[in-house]
Amino acid sequence: MADVVLHDALVSQEVLTLVSSGTRIVNVGKRCGRKSISQEAISELMLRFASNGEVVVRLKSGDPLIFGRAGEELDALKGAGVEVEIVPGVTAALAAAATVQVSLTDRRSAERLLVISAHRGHGKTDSDWSGLVTRGTTVVVYMPGEYGSVAADLRGAGLSGSTPCAIVSKASGSEEQSYHTTLALLDQAPILPAPCVLIVGETVARTASQKSRSLCLNAVPLQGDFAQASESSRGF
Amino acid sequence: MADVVLHDALVSQEVLTLVSSGTRIVNVGKRCGRKSISQEAISELMLRFASNGEVVVRLKSGDPLIFGRAGEELDALKGAGVEVEIVPGVTAALAAAATVQVSLTDRRSAERLLVISAHRGHGKTDSDWSGLVTRGTTVVVYMPGEYGSVAADLRGAGLSGSTPCAIVSKASGSEEQSYHTTLALLDQAPILPAPCVLIVGETVARTASQKSRSLCLNAVPLQGDFAQASESSRGF
Repeated sequence: MADVVLHDALVSQEVLTLVSSGTRIVNVGKRCGRKSISQEAISELMLRFASNGEVVVRLKSGDPLIFGRAGEELDALKGAGVEVEIVPGVTAALAAAATVQVSLTDRRSAERLLVISAHRGHGKTDSDWSGLVTRGTTVVVYMPGEYGSVAADLRGAGLSGSTPCAIVSKASGSEEQSYHTTLALLDQAPILPAPCVLIVGETVARTASQKSRSLCLNAVPLQGDFAQASESSRGF
Repeated sequence: MADVVLHDALVSQEVLTLVSSGTRIVNVGKRCGRKSISQEAISELMLRFASNGEVVVRLKSGDPLIFGRAGEELDALKGAGVEVEIVPGVTAALAAAATVQVSLTDRRSAERLLVISAHRGHGKTDSDWSGLVTRGTTVVVYMPGEYGSVAADLRGAGLSGSTPCAIVSKASGSEEQSYHTTLALLDQAPILPAPCVLIVGETVARTASQKSRSLCLNAVPLQGDFAQASESSRGF
């Protein structure tokens, strides 16, 4: 139905090929702080198209309501009386957890999930995580930035160096990669291509114990682990 | 590709109609504590079909890695050497946030997201949330149970009575409903049909301020708010 699609940089070409041929596609993406277009300009663009009677799709990667700047855009649209429908998506925490096959909550080791971001804009870092990160909490850090710094913040907040963690790069994409380590060794982890998320918590160990704690490049996650399983033995 | 689909009670008929006609469909759902089949029996069933050479889909509602008992099932399958692929989904927090059009993180009021459950099995309640729930955190409570009790727990953990919250029932379904209130008044909220999630945090106020704080039954969320907008003015 869209007349115009305004998409972020992280939206893949595979998704964009689903857009109808008559639809105008505009890349309004910002990457690595290099702003091709400001947040205000994106809102203005949406309003301009919408008030022109066009159906506008604002297409983001992941879920728009988690670190997606949806708040500012919703305010602008609602303030102008534009009707809005939000379509939820698969946020990076869930895609990354699926890649490394880690249950983010688990009755046995993880009572809750905390989703935080280490990147707070303009180079600021929010490291006031004391009390928030506990042994029974699985922590997913979006835009973790420099591993040593985020590891220090998490340990400063009370997590032990032995806490298992996994870095997942480009989760759900064809180039996804993951790396298992611990908080103490996190600063020695290889820098994987952005976007990355970091999953931290005891529940991560359940995967790690099934495989060597080393670099795991997988198009089909963990398939190698089951190479010995018979061809006919396939799971869900 | 599935030979067998083992699904939970919350999987809708609309989704089940997508299953190929030759595929065996088994409801292994548990509702309201009434166990039709135990967790162990579900794992055994998956293993039995898989070791028989069949492709098994274990179909859950939402995302399998958030309060989905995936941990136990993954352990059973991996322990038996069965190859597993996990397909992420839209967890209830994201579906509910889309319904009430609340950005769960917002640079202006919500730095992070905490996903917790008030139902801890066997009637136990985990109310040890002090330090975890802070003003800058959006809290989503799965299976919130008795509203007065969860409100008391959240206020006991330090949140003020004026903290805005929204109950969302059957998020993303055709019968979804939502109700906006505050923590202080939460115990007076109507009991909406399960499954419900409770969204708590300053970011919720951004929606509430756009509409009356009253019962909102919407097939298309908030559409009524924009009744005055011209027919041709449509958003994303």
